[in-house]
Amino acid sequence: MTRWLGDSEGRLKQAAIDLFAARGFDAVTVADIAEAAGVTERTFFRYFADKREVLFTDHDAYHAHFLDALAVSGETTPMGLVEAALRGGAGFFPETRRPMSRARQRVIDSSPALRERESLKRTGLAEALVAALVARGVAPMAAALAAQSGTAAFYVAFATWTADGETRTFPELLDDALAELKSLLV
Amino acid sequence: MTRWLGDSEGRLKQAAIDLFAARGFDAVTVADIAEAAGVTERTFFRYFADKREVLFTDHDAYHAHFLDALAVSGETTPMGLVEAALRGGAGFFPETRRPMSRARQRVIDSSPALRERESLKRTGLAEALVAALVARGVAPMAAALAAQSGTAAFYVAFATWTADGETRTFPELLDDALAELKSLLV
Repeated sequence: MTRWLGDSEGRLKQAAIDLFAARGFDAVTVADIAEAAGVTERTFFRYFADKREVLFTDHDAYHAHFLDALAVSGETTPMGLVEAALRGGAGFFPETRRPMSRARQRVIDSSPALRERESLKRTGLAEALVAALVARGVAPMAAALAAQSGTAAFYVAFATWTADGETRTFPELLDDALAELKSLLV
Repeated sequence: MTRWLGDSEGRLKQAAIDLFAARGFDAVTVADIAEAAGVTERTFFRYFADKREVLFTDHDAYHAHFLDALAVSGETTPMGLVEAALRGGAGFFPETRRPMSRARQRVIDSSPALRERESLKRTGLAEALVAALVARGVAPMAAALAAQSGTAAFYVAFATWTADGETRTFPELLDDALAELKSLLV
């Protein structure tokens, strides 16, 4: 049963994740997804290049959460700027999004090819943060270290947030991961 | 002119990097590489699946430098173990290897597809370190944070080591990058 999301793109995403979770990624066709969302295959391909892409959309909106927060931050240290960006990114994962994020992550974890693509997306986020930090005057080496260790903490928080039974919010888990990162390095 | 490396596999690698550097990755064929190395195309394909693979070989030997050092380390903290592994990994990059590493990195930097593959290899190294740390009894969250921030420092050192004109050794640059990482997080 597909939850109504009010638009074809949203319905297609939800239908795809529901079907992937129920039958496995490989067993689901674009025709299955379109049918479950109540649209034609042609409509599917208006929004997504292939069935894998359904899982990796929202890229620009996602990055904007981090980069907008960084842009308005008054922090002056590399790690302070990165933390501001990560707290902005945490805003992309309100509690209402957790069930879908959890289902999506299960699908991605089930497939090496999807995990590879996810890994590249995460690298892309770290690279976008490095570029934004350098544009703010941070030295390249400090920018790379702060952005990469910070995004590591972000995705540790994300993995915990999407674990079964976890109830702490994303901002709480992010604070815990950042505190743990600091405690490891003293 | 291809430097004699004493074996077909080594000659093919050196010839490939020389040709990629001179003509660009896309313009070089397997036939070109085989000819420059003085072997047949059939011999090329005995060692490598395609021309991209020539740049990404030695994977097991590379990981072994890190994992063997971690295995014999008497360190007891997550970051102490990671630093031991990274110093082992630095042993893969003696000064005699710098010209080839530098030429290889130029080729990889020139192509988005090669950069993607390199990025996945780096993620694979971090994941191997996480698994080894967890096997040593480190908690998964601490293992992920230590391995990922540590490998970030390692590749910052690598980028500096392969930069034009850089003369500091890999172990020196790794120490600098680890010190900088710590200074960012206090």
